[in-house]
Amino acid sequence: MATRRTLLLIPALVLGLAARTPADTTPSSSGPLLGFSNDHASQQRELEARFDSHLDAPSLREWMKRLSARPHHVGSPYDKDNAEFMAGLFRSWGFQTQIEQFKVLFPTPKTRLLEMVAPTRFTATLSEPPLPEDPTSGQTAEQLPTYNAYSIDGDVTGELVYVNYGVPKDYEELERRGIDVKGKIVMARYGGSWRGIKPKVAAEHGAIGCIIFSDPSGDGYLQGDVYPKGGWRSDRGVQRGSVADMPVYSGDPLTPGVGATENAKRLDIKDATTLTKIPVLPISYGDALPLLKAMAGPMAPEGWRGSLPMPYHLGPGPARVHLKLAFNWNLAPLYDVIARIPGSERPDEWVIRGNHHDAWVNGANDPVSGMVAELAEARALGELVKSGWKPKRTIIYAAWDGEEPGLLGSTEWAETHAEELRQHGAVYINSDSNARGFFGAGGSHQLETFINQVLRDVPDPEKGISVLDRSLAADALYGGPDRQEGVKARFVPLEPLGSGSDFTPFLQHLGISALNIGYGGEDEYGQYHSIYDSFAHYTRFVDPTFEYGVALAKTGGRIVLRLADADVLPFDPDRFATAVGRYADEVQKLLGDLRKQTVERNQQLDNKVYEAVDDPTQKWWVAPKRLGDVPYLNFSPLENAVARLKASTAAYSKAIAAATAGGKEPPLEAQARLDDVLMKAERALTTTQGLPRRSWYVHQIYAPGYYTGYGVKTLPAVREAIEQRQWQEAEQQMGVVAGAIDGFAKEIDRATALLGPSPAAAGR
Amino acid sequence: MATRRTLLLIPALVLGLAARTPADTTPSSSGPLLGFSNDHASQQRELEARFDSHLDAPSLREWMKRLSARPHHVGSPYDKDNAEFMAGLFRSWGFQTQIEQFKVLFPTPKTRLLEMVAPTRFTATLSEPPLPEDPTSGQTAEQLPTYNAYSIDGDVTGELVYVNYGVPKDYEELERRGIDVKGKIVMARYGGSWRGIKPKVAAEHGAIGCIIFSDPSGDGYLQGDVYPKGGWRSDRGVQRGSVADMPVYSGDPLTPGVGATENAKRLDIKDATTLTKIPVLPISYGDALPLLKAMAGPMAPEGWRGSLPMPYHLGPGPARVHLKLAFNWNLAPLYDVIARIPGSERPDEWVIRGNHHDAWVNGANDPVSGMVAELAEARALGELVKSGWKPKRTIIYAAWDGEEPGLLGSTEWAETHAEELRQHGAVYINSDSNARGFFGAGGSHQLETFINQVLRDVPDPEKGISVLDRSLAADALYGGPDRQEGVKARFVPLEPLGSGSDFTPFLQHLGISALNIGYGGEDEYGQYHSIYDSFAHYTRFVDPTFEYGVALAKTGGRIVLRLADADVLPFDPDRFATAVGRYADEVQKLLGDLRKQTVERNQQLDNKVYEAVDDPTQKWWVAPKRLGDVPYLNFSPLENAVARLKASTAAYSKAIAAATAGGKEPPLEAQARLDDVLMKAERALTTTQGLPRRSWYVHQIYAPGYYTGYGVKTLPAVREAIEQRQWQEAEQQMGVVAGAIDGFAKEIDRATALLGPSPAAAGR
Repeated sequence: MATRRTLLLIPALVLGLAARTPADTTPSSSGPLLGFSNDHASQQRELEARFDSHLDAPSLREWMKRLSARPHHVGSPYDKDNAEFMAGLFRSWGFQTQIEQFKVLFPTPKTRLLEMVAPTRFTATLSEPPLPEDPTSGQTAEQLPTYNAYSIDGDVTGELVYVNYGVPKDYEELERRGIDVKGKIVMARYGGSWRGIKPKVAAEHGAIGCIIFSDPSGDGYLQGDVYPKGGWRSDRGVQRGSVADMPVYSGDPLTPGVGATENAKRLDIKDATTLTKIPVLPISYGDALPLLKAMAGPMAPEGWRGSLPMPYHLGPGPARVHLKLAFNWNLAPLYDVIARIPGSERPDEWVIRGNHHDAWVNGANDPVSGMVAELAEARALGELVKSGWKPKRTIIYAAWDGEEPGLLGSTEWAETHAEELRQHGAVYINSDSNARGFFGAGGSHQLETFINQVLRDVPDPEKGISVLDRSLAADALYGGPDRQEGVKARFVPLEPLGSGSDFTPFLQHLGISALNIGYGGEDEYGQYHSIYDSFAHYTRFVDPTFEYGVALAKTGGRIVLRLADADVLPFDPDRFATAVGRYADEVQKLLGDLRKQTVERNQQLDNKVYEAVDDPTQKWWVAPKRLGDVPYLNFSPLENAVARLKASTAAYSKAIAAATAGGKEPPLEAQARLDDVLMKAERALTTTQGLPRRSWYVHQIYAPGYYTGYGVKTLPAVREAIEQRQWQEAEQQMGVVAGAIDGFAKEIDRATALLGPSPAAAGR
Repeated sequence: MATRRTLLLIPALVLGLAARTPADTTPSSSGPLLGFSNDHASQQRELEARFDSHLDAPSLREWMKRLSARPHHVGSPYDKDNAEFMAGLFRSWGFQTQIEQFKVLFPTPKTRLLEMVAPTRFTATLSEPPLPEDPTSGQTAEQLPTYNAYSIDGDVTGELVYVNYGVPKDYEELERRGIDVKGKIVMARYGGSWRGIKPKVAAEHGAIGCIIFSDPSGDGYLQGDVYPKGGWRSDRGVQRGSVADMPVYSGDPLTPGVGATENAKRLDIKDATTLTKIPVLPISYGDALPLLKAMAGPMAPEGWRGSLPMPYHLGPGPARVHLKLAFNWNLAPLYDVIARIPGSERPDEWVIRGNHHDAWVNGANDPVSGMVAELAEARALGELVKSGWKPKRTIIYAAWDGEEPGLLGSTEWAETHAEELRQHGAVYINSDSNARGFFGAGGSHQLETFINQVLRDVPDPEKGISVLDRSLAADALYGGPDRQEGVKARFVPLEPLGSGSDFTPFLQHLGISALNIGYGGEDEYGQYHSIYDSFAHYTRFVDPTFEYGVALAKTGGRIVLRLADADVLPFDPDRFATAVGRYADEVQKLLGDLRKQTVERNQQLDNKVYEAVDDPTQKWWVAPKRLGDVPYLNFSPLENAVARLKASTAAYSKAIAAATAGGKEPPLEAQARLDDVLMKAERALTTTQGLPRRSWYVHQIYAPGYYTGYGVKTLPAVREAIEQRQWQEAEQQMGVVAGAIDGFAKEIDRATALLGPSPAAAGR
């Protein structure tokens, strides 16, 4: 998977306002570092310079060539081979290394048939042809066919309905046109949501099958020349991918909440709630064109029309298709590589760095580009250890298996080691695909100040200026209003995390602070989850010199080194309070907007506006439904909790500033206890009961949306209750969220107390 | 031509907010009428009911069939035949009818060649094939070939550059990518401006040729099924059209400002400033695709990418084309049909109603659909006359020739009769293409209250409710913020008039108040200026029952009848004052926005933001130019003039309200003198020197944009000076515009004085 693209596209969407960006911006190599005394900061910088000296682009290239040389999906021989190869590397670099194995449900295709049976006949190719320009594309014997993992078996025939991205609001547009998908097969295009949402929402509306196609407007010719001339998706490229209902839980569908070890108690397949309810198949736009061209019915709304050379009709029919899918419902082994450098002073505090190693096919970009950066970091850390350095805290490097089907390797490991991790987990740092371009990051907002200091110190390979300054320049030119605020403050905001990569079990299931990092935006990457995501493609169109791989290693390495060595964990709870305050404002505004829309809609119905406007020759028009009134809700529990939180974090900021005034270390005897409180404060944001209808997700601030999949919902219990017009639940969850925020604030108060009474803190 | 589509698309562009629209909305047949005493209003309504009884859809159908039976462009036999046929009809209905002839420059193609000479060879078809489903499409011997009128001759070869719509801001994007069109041939797509702007701006930037293509995103398959299956443009449909520089002057290029009569003094062709500077040719998307596919270079900006199945590259080249054009530079005859019913009481006040009759080919929609509605009105007026009714004022019905090449028939007639028209012209009412759907109108804002009363009284054929209510419902659902204001006030705003049809010489050259009216928005009209704009197409896809033709006749008829019979001309200068006040605010805001953008741009340059962001592997990036500071300008002359204007119009409103209190007539002896003042007030908005660099356009409030062509610029002298950063000119023109507004206000004061001192007026 990879959330990178999602992250990076956000700032580019809206043309922004201007901003002050200083002209002279070389990466800094001095100044204070959060969590470090002045003396320790100088030592740290010296250490980082040595770390950098052990990074080199040719190694990344060689590793990528090795790791992507053959298809290496879950259960394939080369998947295991890669795991063993990497375990060997980690060992050779001095890490305590083991491969942890799990056994997970991993269906592979037995039968795949998609044929149009009316008004003409056409059988979809369902294949990606080898290209002479791309040597690994010819490894057909080892490639997984094009399919969506965790689609159920099915044999259905029905008329097609085009549903755009297939998200809930698309079905409102269909309703306006009198179109019901009951008993129909939906055609959805990729984009607009995580792919697993499409069959889920289709099934909720009564569809019997789901076809997902890559419209050329997404990553095909609308973006640029197609492969192999350019890097974008050709008419035969197919996006594989998981369609499990991951917003309910990630990991093995048969072992929710527990590690999928050899003897784990497993659900019957029929009881696995994250499998789809209807059969699903992904296809290329070459296969989609004849089907879509054979459709009639109303024209799709303007925003739904893609880049195929035809009118986009909604159906239903007259195109009728037969979709037949059957899978081998086997258990497959997972090989997680776990490599450790024990902490010398605080071994019970773990800094965990991870990237997955499994791919849908050869996966040069997804995930090998991130994996090789991680390997480079590990080797450099090993060199530092060899030269005598020891991290204060324990460092764990992980190469996850089974991320593609559903964050399997990370989730099963996190579930297996849940108790230890809750006890010891300080921060989890994730990466995935990486490319030439701009830095993008999401994560826990306590780490926002910290990550900005890191970005200030990493040079952009193309420009020489700091990665921070390049990010700010991009925000100044292309960022929306929120990013412009960051530009003014010379500060890159962290996006809140939804899902789509291996941070999810750590952050959202265990409450461990997390970061997700990567570069991109200057690549031509139309090969997501295709056989053409290859070394040949990567070295032409993504990061030919691997300089951004090195930049990612410098970034990830600094993050790990600083987290491992800081006097006190470099958390800034003030930034978290600011973010939560913003989210609390947003959910209030959401309710107000919903009320306004509701009143307007109902007024328009009273005034028969739709009857007056809709074209009577198009008999399909149906006025939208009348909406129930939107009540005023009691936001005060949330508002009071935010106010208390802000007071607590401000007091901590004053206390730590006083304790470190003049660049000194906080009292030695307080440091480990402070760490313990700070790293567990994020745990206080979780609840044992979890989110409504998805108890696996316990974090009350960040979650993937139930109907977005990757896209984040902050304050999810409250926000989604309002979106779904569940007023009682919204008010009830307001109390739950407020309780979690209060729990966090209490932890911060404990941290403040550990620093002793200070004149500033006493003054409030 | 036809500005209808432009007008109607405006409200649909932005999804709007809700609004109060009363549920019960049947067209009213009672209530006061502006300009009429209560007694006269009742008589007028009775007259209108009789008028309506003489309208019938089958006649419109028959006339359309007759008029569109053969190609009838300027100079063709059937163009003359149609004129004589209509003159006969007008005579038979009792109108004093004559055909006025002019002689105008009208080039027709002698040579048309477009061939790609590299990297591969391809010769464009430059033809529209006959279709069996469309009988008149086979009249190849009489059809004008596909071409742009008033392109100069040329024989050029050069590399292609894709310039999007080819408007000035598109060239800024090209500059950012280091692309210069000097010595190149530009490929521009239709849309985004009037077509004549494309070669004009291309030539200003040094291009040597211009090709204009119909991208399927405009009126092709992106909109729906293509002809003959659906109504939209197929891959062989071509949009002919004029490319004269009409924002400089409309009418015959050889006789600017004077009528093109037999012996008129004519310019040499080489001195005609409205001919293009470079050769221009329109092509279909079938012909465009091979050319565009052969291009390379940077990808076009996202908003530039159309719906052809390929990446849109900017070039230059490697596609190289040879464009060879030669024309017969002949004079052709124009046949304007002018039909008159003399006024019985105030024959020196003229109400003029016009529609053009010439077409590019068969022109069922453009212009015959509007023409047949006008004929229906004329026949019904004739019936009223036969039954004894006589209009108070003179009514003139006109069928213009030569609108398509450049508003030739209307302009030459208006120039020939300029003195009489300045003396007698009360209102000019224009229509052009007409279709099923929603009412749209532009015009002088003095007529805004009046037109709303008309719309209140015309029933929508499909819905039974009034046209006003249907318009308001559409605005409520789809209108932008400005239209929403109208919805709240139950008021359809008039759009200010730019150009694109025959109102231009009357309003903008002579200062006669004007209206432009039509219906549309529920049609499938992808045949603009093509051989497929035929009776067969119209009766399937535009207005099959001709009910909207009848609705247009009811609308136009009411407008004419009320203007002809009112006690006092139903002008409402208050609405004009409101509109001008809004425009004055807009130009102030424009300057402020420009200043803000300038500061931001220059800051970004200071901060080297572009250097930091632009992808260094794409060597073409060039930072934008530094902009000169935007000074503060003295808006006070304009502001003071607007304030005086508002005081004057408010006083008139009070005075006329007092004079007509209780629904009585204003004093009889004042009526004709009031008319004379009111109808000439619009003339006070003109200046003898005209607009800078285009003295033919004398109206200081409304003009087509110098760089938009059809699109209006209000307060054009000031607005365009600001847009072009001509600060001195902007300030100087502020005084000129203020003077014109003052002149108008003085006329209104005279009208107020004619009504005598009233308690209300004295009180201000």
